Amino acid sequence: MQLLEERIQRDGQVRPGNVLKVDSFLNHQLDVALLDEVGRAFYDAYKDDGITKILTIEASGIAIACMTARHFGVPVVFAKKAKSKNIDGEVYTSTVHSYTYGRDYEITLSKKFLGPEDKVLIVDDFLAVGKAMHGLLDVCKQAGAAVGGIGIAIEKGFQPGGAGLREQGYKLTSLAIVDEMDDSGHLRFRPQP
Amino acid sequence: MQLLEERIQRDGQVRPGNVLKVDSFLNHQLDVALLDEVGRAFYDAYKDDGITKILTIEASGIAIACMTARHFGVPVVFAKKAKSKNIDGEVYTSTVHSYTYGRDYEITLSKKFLGPEDKVLIVDDFLAVGKAMHGLLDVCKQAGAAVGGIGIAIEKGFQPGGAGLREQGYKLTSLAIVDEMDDSGHLRFRPQP
Repeated sequence: MQLLEERIQRDGQVRPGNVLKVDSFLNHQLDVALLDEVGRAFYDAYKDDGITKILTIEASGIAIACMTARHFGVPVVFAKKAKSKNIDGEVYTSTVHSYTYGRDYEITLSKKFLGPEDKVLIVDDFLAVGKAMHGLLDVCKQAGAAVGGIGIAIEKGFQPGGAGLREQGYKLTSLAIVDEMDDSGHLRFRPQP
Repeated sequence: MQLLEERIQRDGQVRPGNVLKVDSFLNHQLDVALLDEVGRAFYDAYKDDGITKILTIEASGIAIACMTARHFGVPVVFAKKAKSKNIDGEVYTSTVHSYTYGRDYEITLSKKFLGPEDKVLIVDDFLAVGKAMHGLLDVCKQAGAAVGGIGIAIEKGFQPGGAGLREQGYKLTSLAIVDEMDDSGHLRFRPQP
Protein backbone atom coordinates (compact mmCIF):
# COMPACT_ATOMS: atom_id res chain seq x y z
CA MET A 1 0.00 0.00 0.00
CA GLN A 2 1.88 3.01 -1.34
CA LEU A 3 0.24 5.52 1.03
CA LEU A 4 1.39 3.53 4.05
CA GLU A 5 4.91 2.86 2.72
CA GLU A 6 5.37 6.57 2.01
CA ARG A 7 4.18 7.45 5.50
CA ILE A 8 6.57 4.93 7.10
CA GLN A 9 9.44 6.37 5.01
CA ARG A 10 8.52 9.90 6.03
CA ASP A 11 7.60 9.51 9.70
CA GLY A 12 8.88 6.10 10.81
CA GLN A 13 12.03 5.96 12.91
CA VAL A 14 14.37 2.98 13.19
CA ARG A 15 15.64 2.26 16.69
CA PRO A 16 18.27 -0.24 17.86
CA GLY A 17 16.87 -3.75 18.37
CA ASN A 18 14.82 -3.84 15.16
CA VAL A 19 12.32 -1.34 16.56
CA LEU A 20 10.43 0.61 13.90
CA LYS A 21 8.70 3.52 15.63
CA VAL A 22 5.50 4.61 13.91
CA ASP A 23 3.99 6.15 17.01
CA SER A 24 3.21 9.44 15.26
CA PHE A 25 0.47 7.83 13.12
CA LEU A 26 -0.14 4.15 13.95
CA ASN A 27 0.09 3.23 17.63
CA HIS A 28 0.25 6.20 19.98
CA GLN A 29 -0.95 9.14 17.94
CA LEU A 30 -3.37 7.80 15.31
CA ASP A 31 -3.94 9.21 11.83
CA VAL A 32 -7.53 8.07 11.51
CA ALA A 33 -7.77 9.01 7.82
CA LEU A 34 -4.79 6.75 7.08
CA LEU A 35 -6.27 3.97 9.23
CA ASP A 36 -9.50 4.27 7.28
CA GLU A 37 -7.52 3.63 4.07
CA VAL A 38 -5.88 0.64 5.78
CA GLY A 39 -9.36 -0.64 6.65
CA ARG A 40 -10.52 -0.09 3.09
CA ALA A 41 -7.55 -2.08 1.76
CA PHE A 42 -8.41 -5.00 4.07
CA TYR A 43 -12.02 -4.76 2.92
CA ASP A 44 -10.93 -4.92 -0.72
CA ALA A 45 -8.84 -8.02 0.07
CA TYR A 46 -11.47 -9.94 2.08
CA LYS A 47 -14.87 -8.54 1.09
CA ASP A 48 -15.91 -11.78 -0.65
CA ASP A 49 -14.79 -14.09 2.16
CA GLY A 50 -17.89 -14.03 4.36
CA ILE A 51 -16.19 -12.29 7.29
CA THR A 52 -18.51 -12.06 10.35
CA LYS A 53 -16.12 -10.49 12.86
CA ILE A 54 -12.91 -8.48 13.03
CA LEU A 55 -10.63 -9.86 15.76
CA THR A 56 -7.65 -8.05 17.24
CA ILE A 57 -5.76 -7.59 20.50
CA GLU A 58 -5.63 -4.53 22.71
CA ALA A 59 -4.44 -1.87 22.52
CA SER A 60 -2.99 -0.71 19.21
CA GLY A 61 -4.93 -3.23 17.15
CA ILE A 62 -8.25 -1.71 18.22
CA ALA A 63 -7.97 1.39 16.03
CA ILE A 64 -7.22 -0.58 12.87
CA ALA A 65 -9.94 -3.09 13.74
CA CYS A 66 -12.57 -0.36 14.11
CA MET A 67 -11.62 1.36 10.86
CA THR A 68 -11.74 -2.04 9.15
CA ALA A 69 -15.04 -3.18 10.67
CA ARG A 70 -16.67 0.03 9.45
CA HIS A 71 -16.16 -1.12 5.85
CA PHE A 72 -17.35 -4.68 6.51
CA GLY A 73 -20.33 -3.70 8.65
CA VAL A 74 -19.44 -6.37 11.23
CA PRO A 75 -18.48 -6.12 14.93
CA VAL A 76 -14.97 -5.94 16.36
CA VAL A 77 -13.95 -8.19 19.22
CA PHE A 78 -10.62 -7.62 20.89
CA ALA A 79 -8.65 -9.96 23.14
CA LYS A 80 -7.67 -8.41 26.47
CA LYS A 81 -4.18 -8.56 27.91
CA ALA A 82 -5.14 -8.25 31.56
CA LYS A 83 -7.78 -10.13 33.51
CA SER A 84 -10.42 -7.57 34.38
CA LYS A 85 -13.01 -7.85 37.14
CA ASN A 86 -15.45 -6.99 34.38
CA ILE A 87 -14.81 -10.12 32.35
CA ASP A 88 -17.04 -12.80 33.79
CA GLY A 89 -18.39 -16.04 32.42
CA GLU A 90 -16.33 -18.44 30.37
CA VAL A 91 -13.27 -17.16 28.55
CA TYR A 92 -10.77 -18.42 26.02
CA THR A 93 -7.19 -17.79 27.15
CA SER A 94 -3.81 -18.14 25.50
CA THR A 95 -0.29 -17.24 26.59
CA VAL A 96 1.71 -14.78 24.50
CA HIS A 97 5.31 -13.68 24.81
CA SER A 98 5.78 -9.96 24.24
CA TYR A 99 9.18 -8.86 22.97
CA THR A 100 8.12 -5.24 23.40
CA TYR A 101 7.40 -5.69 27.09
CA GLY A 102 9.85 -8.51 27.65
CA ARG A 103 7.43 -10.88 29.38
CA ASP A 104 4.70 -13.47 28.90
CA TYR A 105 1.09 -12.44 29.32
CA GLU A 106 -2.30 -14.06 29.08
CA ILE A 107 -4.79 -12.95 26.49
CA THR A 108 -8.46 -13.39 27.32
CA LEU A 109 -11.61 -13.35 25.21
CA SER A 110 -15.17 -14.01 26.38
CA LYS A 111 -16.54 -17.20 24.83
CA LYS A 112 -19.85 -15.51 24.08
CA PHE A 113 -18.22 -13.27 21.46
CA LEU A 114 -16.58 -15.92 19.28
CA GLY A 115 -17.91 -19.31 18.18
CA PRO A 116 -18.11 -21.91 15.39
CA GLU A 117 -20.56 -19.70 13.46
CA ASP A 118 -17.88 -17.02 13.00
CA LYS A 119 -15.50 -16.41 10.13
CA VAL A 120 -12.87 -14.06 11.42
CA LEU A 121 -10.55 -11.48 9.91
CA ILE A 122 -7.68 -10.98 12.35
CA VAL A 123 -6.01 -7.57 12.10
CA ASP A 124 -3.08 -5.96 13.89
CA ASP A 125 -0.70 -3.05 13.44
CA PHE A 126 2.51 -5.14 13.37
CA LEU A 127 3.61 -8.65 12.52
CA ALA A 128 7.17 -9.60 13.49
CA VAL A 129 7.83 -12.91 15.26
CA GLY A 130 4.09 -13.54 15.33
CA LYS A 131 3.60 -14.42 18.98
CA ALA A 132 0.50 -12.27 19.45
CA MET A 133 -0.95 -13.60 16.19
CA HIS A 134 -0.48 -17.19 17.32
CA GLY A 135 -2.32 -16.35 20.52
CA LEU A 136 -5.23 -14.98 18.47
CA LEU A 137 -5.18 -18.01 16.15
CA ASP A 138 -5.20 -20.27 19.23
CA VAL A 139 -8.27 -18.42 20.54
CA CYS A 140 -10.02 -18.93 17.16
CA LYS A 141 -9.16 -22.63 17.28
CA GLN A 142 -10.55 -22.94 20.81
CA ALA A 143 -13.73 -21.17 19.61
CA GLY A 144 -14.06 -23.36 16.53
CA ALA A 145 -14.16 -20.14 14.49
CA ALA A 146 -12.88 -20.14 10.91
CA VAL A 147 -10.03 -17.76 10.09
CA GLY A 148 -10.97 -16.03 6.84
CA GLY A 149 -7.78 -14.05 6.72
CA ILE A 150 -5.16 -11.96 8.48
CA GLY A 151 -4.63 -8.26 7.80
CA ILE A 152 -1.43 -6.56 8.98
CA ALA A 153 -0.44 -2.94 8.53
CA ILE A 154 3.33 -3.43 8.82
CA GLU A 155 5.10 -6.78 8.55
CA LYS A 156 8.76 -7.06 9.47
CA GLY A 157 9.69 -9.33 6.58
CA PHE A 158 13.10 -10.05 8.08
CA GLN A 159 11.42 -11.74 11.05
CA PRO A 160 9.73 -15.14 10.76
CA GLY A 161 6.08 -14.37 11.62
CA GLY A 162 4.79 -13.69 8.12
CA ALA A 163 6.63 -16.52 6.36
CA GLY A 164 5.37 -18.99 8.97
CA LEU A 165 1.74 -17.92 8.56
CA ARG A 166 1.97 -18.13 4.75
CA GLU A 167 3.51 -21.63 5.02
CA GLN A 168 0.56 -22.63 7.20
CA GLY A 169 -1.72 -21.52 4.37
CA TYR A 170 -3.30 -18.46 5.92
CA LYS A 171 -4.47 -15.72 3.58
CA LEU A 172 -2.19 -12.98 4.92
CA THR A 173 -2.30 -9.41 3.64
CA SER A 174 0.50 -7.16 4.89
CA LEU A 175 0.08 -3.66 3.50
CA ALA A 176 3.75 -2.79 3.99
CA ILE A 177 6.50 -5.41 4.33
CA VAL A 178 9.82 -4.09 5.60
CA ASP A 179 12.52 -6.47 4.35
CA GLU A 180 15.48 -4.41 5.54
CA MET A 181 16.01 -1.64 8.02
CA ASP A 182 19.10 -0.32 9.71
CA ASP A 183 19.93 2.20 12.39
CA SER A 184 20.85 4.77 9.75
CA GLY A 185 17.12 4.88 9.00
CA HIS A 186 17.39 3.01 5.70
CA LEU A 187 14.24 1.00 4.91
CA ARG A 188 13.61 -1.41 2.05
CA PHE A 189 10.06 -2.54 1.32
CA ARG A 190 9.21 -5.83 -0.37
CA PRO A 191 7.73 -5.14 -3.81
CA GLN A 192 4.08 -6.21 -3.86
CA PRO A 193 1.52 -6.38 -6.72
CA MET B 1 -28.65 9.76 23.20
CA GLN B 2 -31.71 7.56 22.76
CA LEU B 3 -29.96 4.96 20.60
CA LEU B 4 -27.32 4.37 23.30
CA GLU B 5 -29.84 4.33 26.19
CA GLU B 6 -31.97 1.77 24.35
CA ARG B 7 -28.91 -0.38 23.70
CA ILE B 8 -27.86 -0.22 27.37
CA GLN B 9 -31.40 -1.19 28.41
CA ARG B 10 -31.43 -4.07 25.96
CA ASP B 11 -27.90 -5.48 26.24
CA GLY B 12 -26.38 -3.99 29.40
CA GLN B 13 -26.13 -6.19 32.47
CA VAL B 14 -25.93 -4.95 36.06
CA ARG B 15 -23.47 -6.81 38.26
CA PRO B 16 -22.87 -6.53 42.01
CA GLY B 17 -20.50 -3.70 42.93
CA ASN B 18 -22.06 -1.09 40.63
CA VAL B 19 -20.67 -2.83 37.56
CA LEU B 20 -22.62 -2.14 34.36
CA LYS B 21 -21.49 -4.66 31.77
CA VAL B 22 -21.75 -3.36 28.21
CA ASP B 23 -19.10 -5.68 26.84
CA SER B 24 -21.33 -6.90 24.00
CA PHE B 25 -21.16 -3.52 22.20
CA LEU B 26 -18.88 -1.00 23.94
CA ASN B 27 -15.71 -2.41 25.46
CA HIS B 28 -14.95 -6.01 24.47
CA GLN B 29 -17.10 -6.65 21.42
CA LEU B 30 -17.58 -3.32 19.63
CA ASP B 31 -20.62 -2.25 17.62
CA VAL B 32 -18.76 0.08 15.29
CA ALA B 33 -21.96 1.50 13.74
CA LEU B 34 -23.14 2.53 17.21
CA LEU B 35 -19.71 3.96 18.05
CA ASP B 36 -19.87 5.99 14.85
CA GLU B 37 -23.15 7.51 16.08
CA VAL B 38 -21.46 8.22 19.42
CA GLY B 39 -18.66 9.97 17.54
CA ARG B 40 -21.18 11.94 15.49
CA ALA B 41 -22.92 13.09 18.69
CA PHE B 42 -19.60 14.34 20.11
CA TYR B 43 -18.91 16.11 16.83
CA ASP B 44 -22.30 17.82 16.98
CA ALA B 45 -21.52 18.96 20.54
CA TYR B 46 -17.96 20.25 19.93
CA LYS B 47 -17.64 20.95 16.19
CA ASP B 48 -17.39 24.73 16.75
CA ASP B 49 -14.83 24.50 19.57
CA GLY B 50 -11.62 24.38 17.53
CA ILE B 51 -10.70 20.84 18.60
CA THR B 52 -7.23 19.84 17.31
CA LYS B 53 -6.90 16.39 18.93
CA ILE B 54 -9.02 13.62 20.43
CA LEU B 55 -7.40 12.34 23.64
CA THR B 56 -8.28 9.08 25.36
CA ILE B 57 -6.70 6.25 27.36
CA GLU B 58 -6.12 2.68 26.26
CA ALA B 59 -7.80 0.35 25.73
CA SER B 60 -11.56 0.78 25.50
CA GLY B 61 -11.37 4.53 24.86
CA ILE B 62 -9.50 3.99 21.59
CA ALA B 63 -12.51 2.75 19.63
CA ILE B 64 -14.70 5.72 20.60
CA ALA B 65 -11.80 8.12 20.01
CA CYS B 66 -11.25 6.81 16.46
CA MET B 67 -14.92 6.96 15.56
CA THR B 68 -15.02 10.52 16.95
CA ALA B 69 -11.82 11.74 15.26
CA ARG B 70 -13.20 10.58 11.92
CA HIS B 71 -15.91 13.24 12.14
CA PHE B 72 -13.52 15.99 13.29
CA GLY B 73 -10.75 15.13 10.85
CA VAL B 74 -8.13 15.39 13.62
CA PRO B 75 -5.71 12.83 15.09
CA VAL B 76 -6.29 10.63 18.12
CA VAL B 77 -3.65 10.38 20.82
CA PHE B 78 -4.09 7.82 23.57
CA ALA B 79 -2.37 7.61 26.94
CA LYS B 80 -0.71 4.25 27.59
CA LYS B 81 -1.14 2.30 30.80
CA ALA B 82 2.14 0.40 30.68
CA LYS B 83 5.62 1.69 30.01
CA SER B 84 6.63 0.24 26.66
CA LYS B 85 10.17 -0.11 25.36
CA ASN B 86 8.79 1.64 22.32
CA ILE B 87 8.00 4.88 24.11
CA ASP B 88 11.19 6.90 24.15
CA GLY B 89 11.89 10.57 24.56
CA GLU B 90 10.14 12.78 27.06
CA VAL B 91 6.77 11.72 28.41
CA TYR B 92 4.01 13.14 30.54
CA THR B 93 3.00 10.75 33.32
CA SER B 94 0.20 10.71 35.87
CA THR B 95 -0.90 8.14 38.45
CA VAL B 96 -4.42 6.73 38.22
CA HIS B 97 -6.28 4.41 40.57
CA SER B 98 -8.32 1.76 38.76
CA TYR B 99 -11.35 0.40 40.60
CA THR B 100 -11.80 -2.18 37.88
CA TYR B 101 -8.32 -3.60 38.35
CA GLY B 102 -8.01 -2.68 42.02
CA ARG B 103 -4.61 -0.97 41.74
CA ASP B 104 -2.79 2.22 40.87
CA TYR B 105 -1.10 2.53 37.51
CA GLU B 106 0.90 5.12 35.61
CA ILE B 107 -0.43 6.62 32.43
CA THR B 108 2.14 7.81 29.92
CA LEU B 109 1.92 10.11 26.90
CA SER B 110 4.77 11.24 24.65
CA LYS B 111 5.33 14.98 24.98
CA LYS B 112 5.69 15.33 21.22
CA PHE B 113 2.01 14.51 20.70
CA LEU B 114 0.43 17.11 23.00
CA GLY B 115 1.39 20.74 23.55
CA PRO B 116 0.19 24.31 24.19
CA GLU B 117 -0.98 24.58 20.56
CA ASP B 118 -3.60 21.87 21.14
CA LYS B 119 -7.25 22.12 22.07
CA VAL B 120 -8.31 18.69 23.19
CA LEU B 121 -11.55 16.75 23.27
CA ILE B 122 -11.13 13.99 25.87
CA VAL B 123 -13.35 10.96 25.27
CA ASP B 124 -13.88 7.70 27.13
CA ASP B 125 -16.42 4.91 27.35
CA PHE B 126 -17.24 5.33 31.05
CA LEU B 127 -17.17 8.05 33.69
CA ALA B 128 -17.74 6.93 37.28
CA VAL B 129 -15.45 8.17 40.03
CA GLY B 130 -13.40 10.00 37.41
CA LYS B 131 -9.90 8.80 38.31
CA ALA B 132 -8.82 8.07 34.73
CA MET B 133 -10.29 11.39 33.57
CA HIS B 134 -8.30 13.28 36.20
CA GLY B 135 -5.15 11.57 34.96
CA LEU B 136 -5.92 12.73 31.40
CA LEU B 137 -6.70 16.27 32.60
CA ASP B 138 -3.42 16.26 34.52
CA VAL B 139 -1.59 15.28 31.33
CA CYS B 140 -3.29 18.15 29.45
CA LYS B 141 -2.26 20.56 32.21
CA GLN B 142 1.35 19.35 32.05
CA ALA B 143 1.24 19.84 28.25
CA GLY B 144 -0.28 23.31 28.51
CA ALA B 145 -3.02 22.04 26.19
CA ALA B 146 -6.51 23.55 26.40
CA VAL B 147 -9.37 21.17 27.20
CA GLY B 148 -12.17 22.01 24.77
CA GLY B 149 -14.49 19.44 26.21
CA ILE B 150 -15.08 15.96 27.56
CA GLY B 151 -17.22 13.34 25.79
CA ILE B 152 -18.39 10.26 27.69
CA ALA B 153 -20.54 7.42 26.39
CA ILE B 154 -21.91 6.26 29.75
CA GLU B 155 -21.75 8.30 32.95
CA LYS B 156 -22.63 6.67 36.25
CA GLY B 157 -24.59 9.63 37.61
CA PHE B 158 -24.72 8.10 41.08
CA GLN B 159 -20.93 8.34 41.33
CA PRO B 160 -19.14 11.68 41.79
CA GLY B 161 -17.02 11.97 38.62
CA GLY B 162 -19.46 13.84 36.42
CA ALA B 163 -20.72 16.27 39.06
CA GLY B 164 -17.14 17.13 40.00
CA LEU B 165 -16.13 17.88 36.40
CA ARG B 166 -19.24 20.07 35.86
CA GLU B 167 -18.47 21.97 39.08
CA GLN B 168 -14.97 22.60 37.77
CA GLY B 169 -16.57 24.16 34.68
CA TYR B 170 -15.66 21.56 32.07
CA LYS B 171 -17.99 21.22 29.08
CA LEU B 172 -18.98 17.60 29.71
CA THR B 173 -21.23 15.67 27.36
CA SER B 174 -22.36 12.27 28.65
CA LEU B 175 -24.56 10.55 26.07
CA ALA B 176 -26.20 8.30 28.65
CA ILE B 177 -26.29 9.09 32.37
CA VAL B 178 -27.33 6.19 34.59
CA ASP B 179 -28.74 7.69 37.81
CA GLU B 180 -29.92 4.42 39.31
CA MET B 181 -29.19 0.76 38.75
CA ASP B 182 -29.79 -2.29 40.91
CA ASP B 183 -28.93 -5.96 40.80
CA SER B 184 -32.42 -6.78 39.51
CA GLY B 185 -31.32 -5.10 36.27
CA HIS B 186 -33.39 -1.95 36.76
CA LEU B 187 -31.79 1.14 35.18
CA ARG B 188 -32.93 4.76 35.37
CA PHE B 189 -31.42 7.31 32.97
CA ARG B 190 -31.18 11.03 33.73
CA PRO B 191 -33.51 12.94 31.39
CA GLN B 192 -31.44 15.12 29.04
CA PRO B 193 -32.47 17.73 26.47
